[in-house]
Amino acid sequence: MSAPLRRTVLRSASKEVVIAADQPFCVIGERINPTGRPVFQEALREGDLSIIEKDVAAQVAGGANVLDINMGVPLTDEADLLVRAIQLVQQVTDLPICIDSSVVEALEAGLVAYQGRALVNSVTAEDERLEAILPLVKKYDAAIVALPNDEHEIPMEHQRRLELTEKIVRVATQEYGIAIDDIVIDPLAMPIGADPTVGRETLLTIRGIVEQWGLNTTCGASNVSFGMPGRHAINGAWLSLAMSAGMTSAIMDARTPHVVDAVRASDLLLGNDEWGSAWITTHRARQAAEAAAAEAAAAATASA
Amino acid sequence: MSAPLRRTVLRSASKEVVIAADQPFCVIGERINPTGRPVFQEALREGDLSIIEKDVAAQVAGGANVLDINMGVPLTDEADLLVRAIQLVQQVTDLPICIDSSVVEALEAGLVAYQGRALVNSVTAEDERLEAILPLVKKYDAAIVALPNDEHEIPMEHQRRLELTEKIVRVATQEYGIAIDDIVIDPLAMPIGADPTVGRETLLTIRGIVEQWGLNTTCGASNVSFGMPGRHAINGAWLSLAMSAGMTSAIMDARTPHVVDAVRASDLLLGNDEWGSAWITTHRARQAAEAAAAEAAAAATASA
Repeated sequence: MSAPLRRTVLRSASKEVVIAADQPFCVIGERINPTGRPVFQEALREGDLSIIEKDVAAQVAGGANVLDINMGVPLTDEADLLVRAIQLVQQVTDLPICIDSSVVEALEAGLVAYQGRALVNSVTAEDERLEAILPLVKKYDAAIVALPNDEHEIPMEHQRRLELTEKIVRVATQEYGIAIDDIVIDPLAMPIGADPTVGRETLLTIRGIVEQWGLNTTCGASNVSFGMPGRHAINGAWLSLAMSAGMTSAIMDARTPHVVDAVRASDLLLGNDEWGSAWITTHRARQAAEAAAAEAAAAATASA
Repeated sequence: MSAPLRRTVLRSASKEVVIAADQPFCVIGERINPTGRPVFQEALREGDLSIIEKDVAAQVAGGANVLDINMGVPLTDEADLLVRAIQLVQQVTDLPICIDSSVVEALEAGLVAYQGRALVNSVTAEDERLEAILPLVKKYDAAIVALPNDEHEIPMEHQRRLELTEKIVRVATQEYGIAIDDIVIDPLAMPIGADPTVGRETLLTIRGIVEQWGLNTTCGASNVSFGMPGRHAINGAWLSLAMSAGMTSAIMDARTPHVVDAVRASDLLLGNDEWGSAWITTHRARQAAEAAAAEAAAAATASA
């Protein structure tokens, strides 16, 4: 790893989180997203955002470092929903936010409303998308998640993904003056059930990005197990495999201990949780909570 | 990875197992070992080996591919116990065996008794050990686990571990005529609680071994979590991290689904379980067993 250490700095109004290879892995909670959640979609259509508060609480309790917010519901005013969601989340937590939309107007409205330094999710290597989104990233001093696919293809070979990464880095830094530390590449972790080669190619993409540019990387970690049984175990193993290759963050399930444990155990083993202080604290707290729950259950039984 | 693919072939009387980067990870069950098991130790001192049958059954059910047998009990005739244990295990399973002893006479007695092609655990880079053990490996046509430490040190830096690996490879192949495919290096995965750098150094050792020689590697996977809470999660994450670096086998806990799942999910993600057929079969069987158990419990409650 000859490339320099990159530091992607995110902030809320009062808290800073740094994504970097010498930091604990950045867990970006994926839950505030209506995709595949019909009850949440229906509530959002009616303007009811109250489910978000529970999603925030569960992800904070699970150990998220950043929260992704996606308000993509068909037939709604996405920009308005996104602004309201950002404001609500900033009222109930100090975690920085990843503003997640494919609609440029919604991204800009979100960036205006957000207090802090956001991560924007996402841009691709398509000229039209780069031209639409990178000026916003620069104007509002944000960091950006970029995917190495373009108008022609989602390439499966890591060599092509690295070529498109090179294009993104070149355009973002030279044409828009964005700092290289603020570019976070999503190497495109696709479902393993659809193609047995995607895991290896994605790991080779991550290694290549780390070796050539030292860039921070992220991925939608739950995506790899789509359609398979035992998804938590697959997602956890995927995160460890990717961390071994150099991945520094993921948009992931922050509510499931099996998955978060895989990340925090990997932090420990990679030397980013020195002497295991975070690991030990988390597990002692969990053991105490379990013991208290067991005692309460026993007391309830005894008095019944 | 420019080094050629290495294939370490192990056999029982009737079954062959290949350790290689294009095969599912080789799970070597660690359980038949009296270390830290006082009840088992006492039984062995009295010549009672019956506990072994349960250990075999649990590890076979858990998905072990090879079984390690260690009979190191102080104040016993280790060679005699090892021979009897090997004969017993070969009666109840067709899995190949890893013969595990630090006593040269016990290793030779075990190799004489074993039917098939064994893995011998282990030799170091110490001249005296190489001279004592490599002739046996050659004479009985076995494969060998080798540790890159010598009479002077257990080195912590991966560069020094690679130098000692070079010595082992040179001596084994040039002086004793052992095939390079039959050398499996244990890169020395020490407890992370004792030194926060051991994880990274061990991963760099594995990567170096894979890049320079393509050798198969193994490790005592439970060792890394020694002294920490949440050991299953740490061991599982360690195995995924090491597999991402190129590790092809481990002497490990084959009885705990959390740990074995980390390995099999990594196989799937690394492309060594094409279309997930092994993963899906295992999980469907587990779901069916859980459903049957739940039904039986419900029936028992209803009839009570």
